[in-house]
Amino acid sequence: MSSINKVVLAYSGGLDTSVIVKWLQETYNCEVVTFTADIGQGEEVEPARAKAEALGVKEIYIDDLREEFVRDFVFPMFRANTIYEGEYLLGTSIARPLISKRLIEIANETGADAISHGATGKGNDQVRFELGAYALKPGIQVIAPWREWDLTSRETLMAYCEEHNIPVDFSSKKKKSPYSMDANLLHISYEGGVLEDPWTEAEEDMWRWSVSPEAAPDVATYIDLTFEKGDIVAIDGERLSPAEVLAKLNKLGGDNGIGRLDIVENRYVGMKSRGCYETPGGTIILKAHRAIESITLDREVAHLKDSLMPKYAELIYNGYWWSPERQLLQNVIDESQEPVNGDVRLKLYKGGVHVVGRRSDDSLFDENIATFEDDAGAYDQKDAEGFIKLNALRMRIAANKGRKLL
Amino acid sequence: MSSINKVVLAYSGGLDTSVIVKWLQETYNCEVVTFTADIGQGEEVEPARAKAEALGVKEIYIDDLREEFVRDFVFPMFRANTIYEGEYLLGTSIARPLISKRLIEIANETGADAISHGATGKGNDQVRFELGAYALKPGIQVIAPWREWDLTSRETLMAYCEEHNIPVDFSSKKKKSPYSMDANLLHISYEGGVLEDPWTEAEEDMWRWSVSPEAAPDVATYIDLTFEKGDIVAIDGERLSPAEVLAKLNKLGGDNGIGRLDIVENRYVGMKSRGCYETPGGTIILKAHRAIESITLDREVAHLKDSLMPKYAELIYNGYWWSPERQLLQNVIDESQEPVNGDVRLKLYKGGVHVVGRRSDDSLFDENIATFEDDAGAYDQKDAEGFIKLNALRMRIAANKGRKLL
Amino acid sequence: MSSINKVVLAYSGGLDTSVIVKWLQETYNCEVVTFTADIGQGEEVEPARAKAEALGVKEIYIDDLREEFVRDFVFPMFRANTIYEGEYLLGTSIARPLISKRLIEIANETGADAISHGATGKGNDQVRFELGAYALKPGIQVIAPWREWDLTSRETLMAYCEEHNIPVDFSSKKKKSPYSMDANLLHISYEGGVLEDPWTEAEEDMWRWSVSPEAAPDVATYIDLTFEKGDIVAIDGERLSPAEVLAKLNKLGGDNGIGRLDIVENRYVGMKSRGCYETPGGTIILKAHRAIESITLDREVAHLKDSLMPKYAELIYNGYWWSPERQLLQNVIDESQEPVNGDVRLKLYKGGVHVVGRRSDDSLFDENIATFEDDAGAYDQKDAEGFIKLNALRMRIAANKGRKLL
Amino acid sequence: MSSINKVVLAYSGGLDTSVIVKWLQETYNCEVVTFTADIGQGEEVEPARAKAEALGVKEIYIDDLREEFVRDFVFPMFRANTIYEGEYLLGTSIARPLISKRLIEIANETGADAISHGATGKGNDQVRFELGAYALKPGIQVIAPWREWDLTSRETLMAYCEEHNIPVDFSSKKKKSPYSMDANLLHISYEGGVLEDPWTEAEEDMWRWSVSPEAAPDVATYIDLTFEKGDIVAIDGERLSPAEVLAKLNKLGGDNGIGRLDIVENRYVGMKSRGCYETPGGTIILKAHRAIESITLDREVAHLKDSLMPKYAELIYNGYWWSPERQLLQNVIDESQEPVNGDVRLKLYKGGVHVVGRRSDDSLFDENIATFEDDAGAYDQKDAEGFIKLNALRMRIAANKGRKLL
Repeated sequence: MSSINKVVLAYSGGLDTSVIVKWLQETYNCEVVTFTADIGQGEEVEPARAKAEALGVKEIYIDDLREEFVRDFVFPMFRANTIYEGEYLLGTSIARPLISKRLIEIANETGADAISHGATGKGNDQVRFELGAYALKPGIQVIAPWREWDLTSRETLMAYCEEHNIPVDFSSKKKKSPYSMDANLLHISYEGGVLEDPWTEAEEDMWRWSVSPEAAPDVATYIDLTFEKGDIVAIDGERLSPAEVLAKLNKLGGDNGIGRLDIVENRYVGMKSRGCYETPGGTIILKAHRAIESITLDREVAHLKDSLMPKYAELIYNGYWWSPERQLLQNVIDESQEPVNGDVRLKLYKGGVHVVGRRSDDSLFDENIATFEDDAGAYDQKDAEGFIKLNALRMRIAANKGRKLL
Repeated sequence: MSSINKVVLAYSGGLDTSVIVKWLQETYNCEVVTFTADIGQGEEVEPARAKAEALGVKEIYIDDLREEFVRDFVFPMFRANTIYEGEYLLGTSIARPLISKRLIEIANETGADAISHGATGKGNDQVRFELGAYALKPGIQVIAPWREWDLTSRETLMAYCEEHNIPVDFSSKKKKSPYSMDANLLHISYEGGVLEDPWTEAEEDMWRWSVSPEAAPDVATYIDLTFEKGDIVAIDGERLSPAEVLAKLNKLGGDNGIGRLDIVENRYVGMKSRGCYETPGGTIILKAHRAIESITLDREVAHLKDSLMPKYAELIYNGYWWSPERQLLQNVIDESQEPVNGDVRLKLYKGGVHVVGRRSDDSLFDENIATFEDDAGAYDQKDAEGFIKLNALRMRIAANKGRKLL
Repeated sequence: MSSINKVVLAYSGGLDTSVIVKWLQETYNCEVVTFTADIGQGEEVEPARAKAEALGVKEIYIDDLREEFVRDFVFPMFRANTIYEGEYLLGTSIARPLISKRLIEIANETGADAISHGATGKGNDQVRFELGAYALKPGIQVIAPWREWDLTSRETLMAYCEEHNIPVDFSSKKKKSPYSMDANLLHISYEGGVLEDPWTEAEEDMWRWSVSPEAAPDVATYIDLTFEKGDIVAIDGERLSPAEVLAKLNKLGGDNGIGRLDIVENRYVGMKSRGCYETPGGTIILKAHRAIESITLDREVAHLKDSLMPKYAELIYNGYWWSPERQLLQNVIDESQEPVNGDVRLKLYKGGVHVVGRRSDDSLFDENIATFEDDAGAYDQKDAEGFIKLNALRMRIAANKGRKLL
Repeated sequence: MSSINKVVLAYSGGLDTSVIVKWLQETYNCEVVTFTADIGQGEEVEPARAKAEALGVKEIYIDDLREEFVRDFVFPMFRANTIYEGEYLLGTSIARPLISKRLIEIANETGADAISHGATGKGNDQVRFELGAYALKPGIQVIAPWREWDLTSRETLMAYCEEHNIPVDFSSKKKKSPYSMDANLLHISYEGGVLEDPWTEAEEDMWRWSVSPEAAPDVATYIDLTFEKGDIVAIDGERLSPAEVLAKLNKLGGDNGIGRLDIVENRYVGMKSRGCYETPGGTIILKAHRAIESITLDREVAHLKDSLMPKYAELIYNGYWWSPERQLLQNVIDESQEPVNGDVRLKLYKGGVHVVGRRSDDSLFDENIATFEDDAGAYDQKDAEGFIKLNALRMRIAANKGRKLL
């Protein structure tokens, strides 16, 4: 590792990344630039400024990235009906490439030669941060304190704070939780604590964004979502920006107990881990998007998308947002969304999202052909015989020649 | 079509297939063998005997196929976490190959040279029945009355009944519904009627197997499911046969408002169609099966299965159960299930199935590695640096050489 | 089938399609428009005019489509390194969608309500012609005489000619061959005759476009091919149009005994068939294209393309060129070709195409990193340890927990 | 790294691995066990014994693994028609997992706690050796001297030899080559030297296993290969063991100038590298295996195999032979080979392998159906109309509704 003059740190304003500021200054004898982003995590970002200043930071970046986050990352991802391992909506994964991008932009602006982050050495996030950084600026250096330092217990960390006069109230309120949490406009995640035993049920008071299904209203909420090119542009007829859409769906979903998930997932770095997630808006989007696609997409286009989705989800989960293969897949997905326009009506009720209607000017649904009643020659039922017979031909030949099915 | 002496008919005992008996006898001047199966549709099959006798049928087969259905068709399908087009649990599709198999077995036993069924010329079921029949007995002839006759309206059908003394009370109770319905132990389906407009919500009184989420109990039901090689073998510690498992889960699910689905799907014969489904037990199985796999399957095995699933689902939906490619995929899936053993704890509540715990003697979850606490060298965090750097190498080289991402 | 006033026929000028002209006029009492295209089959198309006139045809279209064929069909296909079933370069398949397109364009211009072609009812070509036609003009009617008429033997056909005064010398020279042949600028195919026994070797005098490897020159020919965005634009430095490129490579390949293929393939309509093909230029293009991609494409982009190719090849073989899913795949493929620029040097010798060099301004090959010699820190060999250890982690955990490999 | 008592080294008997013996003894103060295998590299292995003894090695393993190599690794791989990146027959990749397996077996027998190998830190082989070792024995330690030591130039290495009295004539004859070479019964590879410029043609005198096409006989050689369950069991009617088959095909191929390959490939560790390979027998096997499959495999089974192949090839190339996902894929592939029996006739001529005939008792080729002549009702040409019309339906509906292609 060559010598480092300036490093841009993804700074939350919390205790851990405050320690990192000090540790970087000391260990590398370098200037630290902090970057704090509002990506909808639900905490004020402005207080990070004073904390950074108190730590001697001179270049402080504080950005509101909520619109960019939803418009350029969350929405494109949902166009593919993306789910990792059949369950996970990728709430953490999808925020990381945006942070990487800003870190590199700021490194370019400030002439920094390194970036740094507070992700541990066992998780996926380090991979996501760093793959993005390397892809966008191949000569960048990366400092991952959790992989380097020896402040690996709460005690050593606290001792370091005391020694370096870092106020412990830098510790955000999150730290009072027994869980490791991460939040952005798409979701909040929980790991650790009692969750480490996958047989133990999460405690009700862990969940922060949604009421329990039991506590949700006894009367269902109906909503209409309007799609244009695969993205939601209006709720109940009111046009909203991408971040507004997601914020409103989070509220609607959370109020109705929607979007809780408790899974064991496979990390890219090789181990299984148990995580709980609340993704109220995302859960609604996924369901609605499939519904609008069901009437507007050609069958084979839809099946092609479905066959590519697991690979696409894996790329995002593993941190390859900023890769040529993800971008190529994105192009296919985006092009497929040209006709994905129309309305979806949903019923939200005590944890459930139920599609009850969908309509579109671009609908390929043809009542006259699908109906059981007579129709005027649009479909000749006798065609089915030939269709079946030729599709059966290879199997008939095989059977004729004595080939056995298992 | 060469002349036909004897035809085996899939006979429900209802009005339509009773007309088919008569029509086959008249049109082909042949003997008709009826075959009626209990696959859990929830109607008595024995009454079909007297009806068939009244129509002059001499060879009458009535079988209880419920255990075979669940053991050899439903359970194998769920081992793959099979869903068609992201939503549909294939309740109709999976019953057809069993009927095909029995039709051919009976044709072999009775020396029949043809089979017949009551599926229309616009649907998927004709394809499923006939592909199976041709694959299992390539020389069989198939008579599909709905593609041949002119009894295509209710009026002409009723006139035929009157003319041929077919009692109209043969008409089953289903016929009082405005919907076209089909049921077996896995699900009940609804098509037609007001559903033909995909924007119109299904009426509450359409649903037959489940209470509405609103009408479900206000207190959640917790259940423990025990898996062996990917199949559920016990509920709350009580060992049950496959059909018993599914019946009990249908009851538990239906009581809790679980398993309703309202979708527009793409038929193999080329058009989109709107269907509503109740699959209470299947919805529970799918969720639980993913949960037990999440701790027992290797990551890459799980991802490989996920990548094959859409193809596998398509094969079943399209009627290729009895094909060498489905059987080959089945073998992969089945082999993968060797370690899929253990328990899953679920919370059922007002339409929702929530996984709250999973455990297994074959678990690959390793608390010591996944935890955030220090561990004794099982995982060296510094390895992550090399892992990331080599995974980033191709992208760094590309960026170094001036290659742009989009 | 509603009544037909005017039909556009794909007319070769040969005996079979001349009979079809007459048969259409008589059977459907309709006007026939003939369409004859030069797609590089190596026969004059202009003589078809007089023949059509002699048959009473008033609207006669004769087009030179060679450039369009190579530019819009052959080249796009090779961008995907397309091969069907590991061997076949799709020479017949790729010409059909162009014919379909022109048939429909002419139907639109002439107000015809149907199209017709001379493909048999057992082959793939009928499917390719008709799927294209239906996709481009859904209300078009299709007349496939070989599926309808009873002129199914050479004798009945000749009798028909005599009866209707169709000169038998309309029969092209191809008819003297015992093989069924089809040619265009990409290839010539042979079926039937002694080839029907897949154990029998094709006779040397069957092949028409290439000398035998034995008869090829004893000295190798070296050529340099220049690629731009995945297409060949120059040979040995001379810029050529797409059709000129293919014509010249056919000459070079044919002279060197390149491009003969003898396979058994699986038809879309369900049976296996044995075909022999000569594709001299195509064989060279495929090899060269892979070579230029090998230095210009990112690894994962290349692997993604490889994973999509079999599907893409199947779509073309089965006749789905004019489908939304083929077009979607085409877009991915085309976008991937942006950096596929540079030169490939080939050695052609007695049936073999050997890549001996490749270079590109867009090369991702990095001598300094790949070399075994010391380098200045571009690659830290110690990174490999972490890379391997994390990639091995899931397998180590599994083994630690007693999980056995088979 | 905990302390090491005994290490098993993959020992070639050459200079580099002899240095490693000494270096391991010194650096780790441990006992070294050498393991030398005959996998058909064409050099005597017995001389390695004396050399190892001279270096103070007490436990020396020398194995003839040729039959196991071909039977359990090479043949299973060819059952999948495996090619990496469209060209490479994986000759190096497939030998590594066998070495890993024996290293671990010997570690278990001798109570060693580590293994070691002579692969560099930039290549794929280190990954293949180590992933296999970790998967088979998760607690094993791995020493990769090339990633650790500072003997990274020829000069420092020679100085080390002199200092430690390692006779330089240990240097095998390979070292006289300017290329880095690796050989086994499947292939010989060349890297480095002038090959580092991918535009430079390999020199004729580099190639060791095959004559040039120019120097091959002027008369073609015909051979008949007999397959059982996808493997070649006889050549020209003479039954041979797996290793005998491959050795004989290497001879036949090499004599006819077959199997030379010059490519740029993408390494798993992230860079592109240029390699030349001679795989005479493998080139023949691949071509013949596809030919026997072409008449014995069901179409959809064949296509399924083709769609899985790139993934399977990647697993082998990347070193995941000993992984559950490779084994699962292997099972699919192996099961598909049940009917892959019969004979293939090939013409070998100046670098080319030409299939001229194939036959099988398990053939699915049906002359009566594929032929153009009349047949007795096996195939009704009119079925094609319905087949086409239903396959076109979705596209016709879309076009009717105004949906445009592109």
